[in-house]
Amino acid sequence: MAYKLAVVYGGCGALGRVFVSKLKLSGAYEVISIDFTPSAEADNNVLVTELSDWSRQSSDVIGQLDKVVGKRRNIDLIACVAGGWAGGSAAELDVVKNSDLMWKQSVWSSLICAQISSKWSNPDGGLLQLTGAVPSLGGTPGMLGYGMAKAAVHQLTHSLAAPGSGIPEGSSVVAILPVTLDTPMNRKFMPDADFTSWTSLEFVVDTVMAWHDQSVDARPKNGALVQFVTKDDVTDLIIEK
Amino acid sequence: MAYKLAVVYGGCGALGRVFVSKLKLSGAYEVISIDFTPSAEADNNVLVTELSDWSRQSSDVIGQLDKVVGKRRNIDLIACVAGGWAGGSAAELDVVKNSDLMWKQSVWSSLICAQISSKWSNPDGGLLQLTGAVPSLGGTPGMLGYGMAKAAVHQLTHSLAAPGSGIPEGSSVVAILPVTLDTPMNRKFMPDADFTSWTSLEFVVDTVMAWHDQSVDARPKNGALVQFVTKDDVTDLIIEK
Repeated sequence: MAYKLAVVYGGCGALGRVFVSKLKLSGAYEVISIDFTPSAEADNNVLVTELSDWSRQSSDVIGQLDKVVGKRRNIDLIACVAGGWAGGSAAELDVVKNSDLMWKQSVWSSLICAQISSKWSNPDGGLLQLTGAVPSLGGTPGMLGYGMAKAAVHQLTHSLAAPGSGIPEGSSVVAILPVTLDTPMNRKFMPDADFTSWTSLEFVVDTVMAWHDQSVDARPKNGALVQFVTKDDVTDLIIEK
Repeated sequence: MAYKLAVVYGGCGALGRVFVSKLKLSGAYEVISIDFTPSAEADNNVLVTELSDWSRQSSDVIGQLDKVVGKRRNIDLIACVAGGWAGGSAAELDVVKNSDLMWKQSVWSSLICAQISSKWSNPDGGLLQLTGAVPSLGGTPGMLGYGMAKAAVHQLTHSLAAPGSGIPEGSSVVAILPVTLDTPMNRKFMPDADFTSWTSLEFVVDTVMAWHDQSVDARPKNGALVQFVTKDDVTDLIIEK
């Protein structure tokens, strides 16, 4: 049996762990996790050790991945689920430090995934999934850095879908935009929130895997931002046309 | 006579030099230039020497500015016109290096200007002007880093206009979005382009200075993206409502 090949950037994060688990449980995927620490469930791991220089992180990750993937095969699914959250208005001392962190977590990983897609995405239905955020579609006055980083990911998604972006024709790019994901960390720091408006990690992963099982034409269109809006434990998708 | 106080971040760039000159020529402004090199026309200069660390650039610039401005007075106009251009699709080797440069030039400067505005913008009509780009409203497949950086500036503009951003009430924020500015560098590198579709630097500066002369209510609304679209040497403004 020919396994499909999946790469999960952030495979040890809350969403990434569910991705790795579900991909493996499906029995259909060979999975490579890219993260600071190895995933025990993944078939292979690429470790991110370079945190201060974007170019070096890129060449280091792609160099390691090349040893695993090489010229042997195409990557079917790239899930870019690295990221985090930090706040800060213009009046807060930490705003620059936090904006720098948001940029590194969300945008460095997204552009490196775009490079991985450019090199290896399967031209017969490969999918690159990036991660944006619904709040960043408007202003985010109390979290300037987070808003900017996710706005950049949204615009990158549009760019990658356009001709000449370097992404192989026949593959596609989609960004998932959650409001709040139901992660252990979010439950810990917002214990009194309304969890019925949070989106389950399993639902997100199931949705992205279902897109990948569809033809490129049946998926959300290439470059679409897809909002995950949850109310009373039910999640609606608002798919950019 | 009480001069108004203006800060030009990027006062030695093509657009910045015109800003400094016109502000001084008006006879109404005391001008502080922030750039790598001193502006001979400005009344005061803050020199940017820290290029590798965003937090240090911020604290260094704000520390120097504090010595000039201190608690004495409010800043009336902050023009953030630092920036540059570099291309790169996902398939190009330089894409990460160039994206890093675009981020530093456009976003570091914009967020530091937001901090300056937070500390010193005149609550009686102060104006913070940031610089975006029309192409970044859509996808920019051949210039991923430029597109992301300017998309981040657009979203930052929306954020800063929202309550709780740290920008003083009674001041406002507007982003100018050119397509192509008629700079010496652009003429050098695109000698065969149609210059009648490029926007004159003088027009941009006159427009921003005119906004500043108006009341906050008469200007483009707080947080507006204003596109400068030039055809046959005539520039139309498309003002976000």
